[in-house]
Amino acid sequence: MAATTATSQPIHWKDIVAEKRQRQTASIPKEWIIDPPPSSQLDVTSFPDKCGLLTDRELEITNTTDVDVILKKLASAEWSSVEVTTAFYKRAIVAQQLVNCLTEIFVDEALARAAELDAHLKSTGKVVGPLHGLPISLKDQFKIKSHETTMGYVSWIGKYADSNSALVDILYECGAVPFVQTNVPQTLMWAETYNVIFGRTLNPNNRNLTSGGSSGGEGALIAMKGSPLGVGSDIGGSIRIPSGFNGLYGMRPSYNRVPYANAVNSMEGQESILSVFGPISNNISGLKAFMKAVVDSKPWLKDPLALRKKWDEEAYALLDRDGGKKLCFGILWNDGQSVPHPPITRGLEITKAALLAAGHEVVDWKPYKHAEMVDVISGIWDSGAEEDFATVTAPTGEPILTSMYDLEAAVKTEAAFRPPEGQPTMTAYQLWQLHKTKLQLRQEHLNYWQSSVSLTGTGRPVDAIISPVAPRTAPTHGNNIDAAYTTVWNGHDSSVCVVPITKVDPVLDAKKPRSNFLSAADERNYQLYDSPETFVDAPVSVQIVGQTQEEEAVLGMAEIVDAAVKAYKATSA
Amino acid sequence: MAATTATSQPIHWKDIVAEKRQRQTASIPKEWIIDPPPSSQLDVTSFPDKCGLLTDRELEITNTTDVDVILKKLASAEWSSVEVTTAFYKRAIVAQQLVNCLTEIFVDEALARAAELDAHLKSTGKVVGPLHGLPISLKDQFKIKSHETTMGYVSWIGKYADSNSALVDILYECGAVPFVQTNVPQTLMWAETYNVIFGRTLNPNNRNLTSGGSSGGEGALIAMKGSPLGVGSDIGGSIRIPSGFNGLYGMRPSYNRVPYANAVNSMEGQESILSVFGPISNNISGLKAFMKAVVDSKPWLKDPLALRKKWDEEAYALLDRDGGKKLCFGILWNDGQSVPHPPITRGLEITKAALLAAGHEVVDWKPYKHAEMVDVISGIWDSGAEEDFATVTAPTGEPILTSMYDLEAAVKTEAAFRPPEGQPTMTAYQLWQLHKTKLQLRQEHLNYWQSSVSLTGTGRPVDAIISPVAPRTAPTHGNNIDAAYTTVWNGHDSSVCVVPITKVDPVLDAKKPRSNFLSAADERNYQLYDSPETFVDAPVSVQIVGQTQEEEAVLGMAEIVDAAVKAYKATSA
Repeated sequence: MAATTATSQPIHWKDIVAEKRQRQTASIPKEWIIDPPPSSQLDVTSFPDKCGLLTDRELEITNTTDVDVILKKLASAEWSSVEVTTAFYKRAIVAQQLVNCLTEIFVDEALARAAELDAHLKSTGKVVGPLHGLPISLKDQFKIKSHETTMGYVSWIGKYADSNSALVDILYECGAVPFVQTNVPQTLMWAETYNVIFGRTLNPNNRNLTSGGSSGGEGALIAMKGSPLGVGSDIGGSIRIPSGFNGLYGMRPSYNRVPYANAVNSMEGQESILSVFGPISNNISGLKAFMKAVVDSKPWLKDPLALRKKWDEEAYALLDRDGGKKLCFGILWNDGQSVPHPPITRGLEITKAALLAAGHEVVDWKPYKHAEMVDVISGIWDSGAEEDFATVTAPTGEPILTSMYDLEAAVKTEAAFRPPEGQPTMTAYQLWQLHKTKLQLRQEHLNYWQSSVSLTGTGRPVDAIISPVAPRTAPTHGNNIDAAYTTVWNGHDSSVCVVPITKVDPVLDAKKPRSNFLSAADERNYQLYDSPETFVDAPVSVQIVGQTQEEEAVLGMAEIVDAAVKAYKATSA
Repeated sequence: MAATTATSQPIHWKDIVAEKRQRQTASIPKEWIIDPPPSSQLDVTSFPDKCGLLTDRELEITNTTDVDVILKKLASAEWSSVEVTTAFYKRAIVAQQLVNCLTEIFVDEALARAAELDAHLKSTGKVVGPLHGLPISLKDQFKIKSHETTMGYVSWIGKYADSNSALVDILYECGAVPFVQTNVPQTLMWAETYNVIFGRTLNPNNRNLTSGGSSGGEGALIAMKGSPLGVGSDIGGSIRIPSGFNGLYGMRPSYNRVPYANAVNSMEGQESILSVFGPISNNISGLKAFMKAVVDSKPWLKDPLALRKKWDEEAYALLDRDGGKKLCFGILWNDGQSVPHPPITRGLEITKAALLAAGHEVVDWKPYKHAEMVDVISGIWDSGAEEDFATVTAPTGEPILTSMYDLEAAVKTEAAFRPPEGQPTMTAYQLWQLHKTKLQLRQEHLNYWQSSVSLTGTGRPVDAIISPVAPRTAPTHGNNIDAAYTTVWNGHDSSVCVVPITKVDPVLDAKKPRSNFLSAADERNYQLYDSPETFVDAPVSVQIVGQTQEEEAVLGMAEIVDAAVKAYKATSA
């Protein structure tokens, strides 16, 4: 299949891609082209500090990871938005040349916006809003007026937005400077990042490893400090996996806490397990800054699905938990399906020791029907996914990817995957039955959680669950074989923060021989850990899992975990 | 088809019904059997006052419609819960004999509960909770431990609950006394009330007319003052239509504001246009008392879908609307599909005049794509409804009703309706496409509403829309032909209160000749108004429609409308 021009001349999808890629290359200022390190250099996170493109002041700005500090310097005009935006833009373009994380690049437009904000502050003495002057990167799902949003689909090249996504409008109202868009996997339904337009995004900590997905462009960009704050989306782990794999803070809010209106997506009309937008940052301050600004903007005035639920500062301050002085966390050592690799378990042990040292309680948390929940979620997605993907890709005949592994070969042979015709698809009534099973599992899990009051000494059920992000750190490309540790919480619509804990250390994280496995997934995961050296420098992170619509409390608790781990590491170092 | 016993003896569904009806009859205390008025007596609302069964004090109690007053007298022990429960129970049993509104009757259990509450108050000096001692009626969807919940399905006779619905647990915790369950139409998907177990519920204002549905048992019971507060459910108007048709106050909250967990329902697993629970009462105070008590109970601790959204007293007080001093209402004179009957239009005119007299603004409100929204909602429900109904009724082979009109004949001939085998049903992917259309309509409607800021003098969009409940008052049985005026707001997930305005007056509400019609539905509706005399004494009500998750503000505005209408009528009388 091929698209056609007005004169019915067929255009091969690869030609459409080539033209788009040319335009992308042209959008990079020539003076920002660098001499890249050899591909054998795996950790490229510090390359921007040494490459000579950024001035000392630009390095000072981009190495400032605390978003609150950046916002204060912007609000006081100590730093102008133009210089902050320029600094991050230059670093983002360096990142692009090292880990291939960007899709849309629009330097002049972003700098013009930054200049407007500077002028406003100068003339009025007031900031435009709580995110005044801050450059923010956006996953390639957001519409920005007059820009393309391809989301990795060749068939969407050339679709220019005539309006902003609701969240983009809100970010503008808050004074932010959207400045780049970032790479995604085709269909968004992969936990790595590759599509046939922009190719593969790499992990800056170790370029042999995946940056995760589907917000893998954000993860790689922010790990390069090419953006102080980015917005990803998460339907099964797509914020949390890139956050965890790249050593970043990330939040998966509950359904519709952050507005999704007028953004593009895959599987539109699937209403049961919803994708959500949320923040990713190098510092936990970025998560609260984003969430509070967005909720305070009353997103329900723009998005009919957005929760009409005010920011709850009391919940954030954990006032109903004695201010968070003594919390009780449940640690999920494994989900009953896949035993985590040694560095992941070590990360949990560090977290446990740090929380105990900080005076909190920690109990073991037994998983409750994780496999059943993940299975029913897959069934719900699969009920219409193939037809959706086939419909979207039909105009150009671009191949539908069947794995994230040997992609170059697959694309070369155009190994397309299309649903066999005439095969019966799921009926709506059958889908309803999956919804019933899902609701039953949610009810049982809530009851199970509430019953944990008997395990704690606080008089409350556990305040949050500490869970791996995955049973592995970032693996080599093509090997991030499942997302069960994150997807289960999408089913429960949990409020979740990801907090980085440590990095893989081949000495501490030696392979431990095992011969009994919980499942086929467990054995496959075990085999992935062929050698700790493969994973060197890969970040190790945890999820802080709260209940539904507990964004404020989970942020408050994630700050406590983060501080406890930092204090513990400082003491034990 | 027929159910079988352990010895494989087939039992006809009519025999199962007969046994259930015998048990229902036996559950009525013999001394509460009254000598009923002739069926030619249409308005039976005042019959309990004259029938001699209730003492003067019981009449004083049951004629007290202000729920706040009842609660205060209960909390101060001026009235005991036993005497209040006895009084309402006796009146409910009178109502049952006049309008056939009850399903489950359990006098001893309710009185024992009331006695416990009285003893608690006496011994501790404290109420159990905000609804201490108040008898509350429940639609036949709630599970009460050890009780049957048939929901009008013969196949569910004999299903005894082993746990309470979440809301029942909450009502117990709040100190309430659930005391009867009330009649519904088979499948719940009718706007009248008839099923093959319990038969038809009549309108107490005029027994030739329908009580509406699907919460028609509640509507008829409360109009008889047989319950001070009842809980109905609403997926397309099922709280609002019985409230409107019986002259009551009712609230349709947004999805999941009131917990639905562990209640029974039809079309379970249909997640797109959700049924919601909400209160019905003779006095608007009952709505707030119920909503505040339920939300304050933190239903999210029991129901995984319940919104974690605190009661917002500031929103109720309309603090962001200058305390409600000058509101702007949009009046929906018709929905573009069916022109309301004369009494409905007169009700809107009264409301408009009353609001203007009270110093508020009123503007005309043009409907935005009502037919499109109602169509897509029907498509979503129909995607699995037939299979759901067929599955549920299969065990006994009870007939599936095809109308609410000539039911006796339909049931006699067992004119069952079952989906033709082999006919393709809707696929999940096709259902997703309907969801997309629905979301698009919600987005457009929100934008349309927000743009109304240009119509008002308040600096805000219209605060609420005043809409008919239906383009007719309660019609004769079988003739409540559609529910478009209410269903549209289920699609938009609006917070809605119903407020009674007046009653049909054959002199004021003369038939107006028309020859041009907006639609086939309009013409059919017009023909229904054969003579004002048919509708004599039928209540006329309006919907106060707010935006999504605006329960508090809509209650505050409904109180303002109610007070304005009462003041206006007092002045102009």
